[in-house]
Amino acid sequence: MEGIRARTQNQLRMMVVMGIDPGVASTGFGVVRLAGGKMSALDGGVIEVAGGQPAEHRLARIHEALAELLTGHDPAAVALEDVYFGKNVRSAISVGQARGVALLTAGQRGVPCFDYTPQEVKMAVCGSGAAAKDQVQRMVATLLGLPQLPASDHAADALAVAVCHAAHARPAQALAAQEPEVPVG
Amino acid sequence: MEGIRARTQNQLRMMVVMGIDPGVASTGFGVVRLAGGKMSALDGGVIEVAGGQPAEHRLARIHEALAELLTGHDPAAVALEDVYFGKNVRSAISVGQARGVALLTAGQRGVPCFDYTPQEVKMAVCGSGAAAKDQVQRMVATLLGLPQLPASDHAADALAVAVCHAAHARPAQALAAQEPEVPVG
Repeated sequence: MEGIRARTQNQLRMMVVMGIDPGVASTGFGVVRLAGGKMSALDGGVIEVAGGQPAEHRLARIHEALAELLTGHDPAAVALEDVYFGKNVRSAISVGQARGVALLTAGQRGVPCFDYTPQEVKMAVCGSGAAAKDQVQRMVATLLGLPQLPASDHAADALAVAVCHAAHARPAQALAAQEPEVPVG
Repeated sequence: MEGIRARTQNQLRMMVVMGIDPGVASTGFGVVRLAGGKMSALDGGVIEVAGGQPAEHRLARIHEALAELLTGHDPAAVALEDVYFGKNVRSAISVGQARGVALLTAGQRGVPCFDYTPQEVKMAVCGSGAAAKDQVQRMVATLLGLPQLPASDHAADALAVAVCHAAHARPAQALAAQEPEVPVG
């Protein structure tokens, strides 16, 4: 019981979100911490998979790398961008395959997944659903206090969708913070 | 060394192929054995996943069920039908997600995966790339000596693509069977 109480308190005060941008050749990830209404980046980068390998090998590599990241960061949620448009059916299947592996890896650990449209991400990060890509990236860097923009577009997109989820969670966290604290022990 | 020789001999004489037809709500599977140039069905059915669950839970259920089937049947190959057409982008992403999990499950066990177009499946099963769906299903039942057609379309499609792969493997197996046998032990 004491352990559970302590964990509940921690969750109210601090939340870690992992954004994932699944792709065929490279899958971006970004880990954002929300604490006291402030966001910071814990991690971010790209899982690169060498081309020319069969899909089943590439997907196994993505699964392995994401599993390690999820175990290491233990996020409360995974956030992904909806990709239901602007692609042809063939590339949609390929992206869907990587996306399925990302969802699975979270599902195997009981981490809930949340989808956001590109408009929702832009709105959450920039306050406008029509913001340009470079504007979103600059704003992500500012919000997270990054010394520079992420080198990879995939990593930047993953951080952006993580920021989007954290921004949606912030009002709930602020409310929760006003509730009386439960003494531990 | 003896173990390896014995296994090599077995592979020449007998091959097990698992066909998978990944879908959002239900994923079909069919396990076909090719031995002495003759095919038979070892297993077939559908992994049903209750609707209304988050995608990450559904995919974890598919992964778990496929992992169990692959461990139980230990196939030399997994065969899947190409689905790069006739679908809109949204359904392509969903099918792609289930497909990615199927490929991953095979990849994690080192089982190679093979894609066949619907035309290749029809050609292998019926001798015509333009065969009708019910013709393919009847022919699959005949080739495998099934007492009746599989109840589920997904299971029938999975058996058909497994038959297709086994049919492609048959000439190689026939050649291999003519090679002198390596004594075991």
